[in-house]
Amino acid sequence: MADASTLDRLFETIRARKGADPATSYTAKLFSRGRAKIAQKVGEEATEAVIEAVSGTPDKLASESADLLYHLLVLWADAGLEPQDVYAILEKREGTSGIAEKKARPQQQQ
Amino acid sequence: MADASTLDRLFETIRARKGADPATSYTAKLFSRGRAKIAQKVGEEATEAVIEAVSGTPDKLASESADLLYHLLVLWADAGLEPQDVYAILEKREGTSGIAEKKARPQQQQ
Amino acid sequence: MADASTLDRLFETIRARKGADPATSYTAKLFSRGRAKIAQKVGEEATEAVIEAVSGTPDKLASESADLLYHLLVLWADAGLEPQDVYAILEKREGTSGIAEKKARPQQQQ
Amino acid sequence: MADASTLDRLFETIRARKGADPATSYTAKLFSRGRAKIAQKVGEEATEAVIEAVSGTPDKLASESADLLYHLLVLWADAGLEPQDVYAILEKREGTSGIAEKKARPQQQQ
Repeated sequence: MADASTLDRLFETIRARKGADPATSYTAKLFSRGRAKIAQKVGEEATEAVIEAVSGTPDKLASESADLLYHLLVLWADAGLEPQDVYAILEKREGTSGIAEKKARPQQQQ
Repeated sequence: MADASTLDRLFETIRARKGADPATSYTAKLFSRGRAKIAQKVGEEATEAVIEAVSGTPDKLASESADLLYHLLVLWADAGLEPQDVYAILEKREGTSGIAEKKARPQQQQ
Repeated sequence: MADASTLDRLFETIRARKGADPATSYTAKLFSRGRAKIAQKVGEEATEAVIEAVSGTPDKLASESADLLYHLLVLWADAGLEPQDVYAILEKREGTSGIAEKKARPQQQQ
Repeated sequence: MADASTLDRLFETIRARKGADPATSYTAKLFSRGRAKIAQKVGEEATEAVIEAVSGTPDKLASESADLLYHLLVLWADAGLEPQDVYAILEKREGTSGIAEKKARPQQQQ
């Protein structure tokens, strides 16, 4: 089913490719090329999402967003992060109106 | 709890701010500034994540990734997308080894 | 000679490829792929320059900067801009301490 | 006069701010914040140029391009590069049809 748990399943699939023969999958090849190359892909996919957001269609934005999320998960796996590490930050900010506190005036809520 | 459902709850919080008085929250202010400004923030946060990935710490990468995801959710809400639209694309690619098929040689798996 | 006029000569070379058969040069091919694709390349090369700046060598930063400038010139040519249009903005800001006035506190100079 | 030499004069102005009191100018403040912050600004301005290129006006693209070039010059100065180092790379590629050789098929010219 396509719900938020998709990201967790995808992350496990990705992490399992770490250290695998680069010839066996795109993900394994990405890991073999190293952190800077993975980060570069995140930047490239973000640029494509930005372009679709301002001049494309919602469908294309969804497709580029999927590419961006996929490469971001590879970057997390390469850096030893778990998705939960990032969710916990979002949860904490939400719980304490943290985004509002960090970014906006005191009387604002998120 | 900080699991993948955090993203869905955060998305609902964000979407509820659409059209709200910009003075009431950072999110409402972002929506009021329009698509190009939201997209610009996605690009900025992606750049910061890239920089932390190659020269920072995992903790800082997690924090910048949280900023990136938050702004990406705002962008989706602004464009009328649901997170499920993006998860479905990832699910479909995973199910059919789609990332591998799209990006790599035919005999590769994801 | 490699001085600032290199950019002007390169711009003329680039502009002369506009509308040419895409098979005849990389530049002509870029023009044929359209504005969004050219802009995407600018974003990609900027990401690469950023990565080299924080984790690479000056030599690699110089090389990625050259790629960025080349694609930026293609973008200008595609949009009907001349390098002089951009230089004039920089000149005006410099003459009036404009960058300082725009970005910083009133008593600051650029 | 606003020609390519504008970039060289601007670069000298920028380089002279290196190490200056951050309170005295925006440029001096940028240097004081360090390489990662300067690189981040380059990424941000590139994103803004990309957005203007695909959904804005040539005038706004020119303005964002000026911002991008300014921050790129600061990055070069911070990394100990000279504009001539970058021009020389462009000159060499132009002279040998290098961009074409690097990026495209053998029979193509730049």
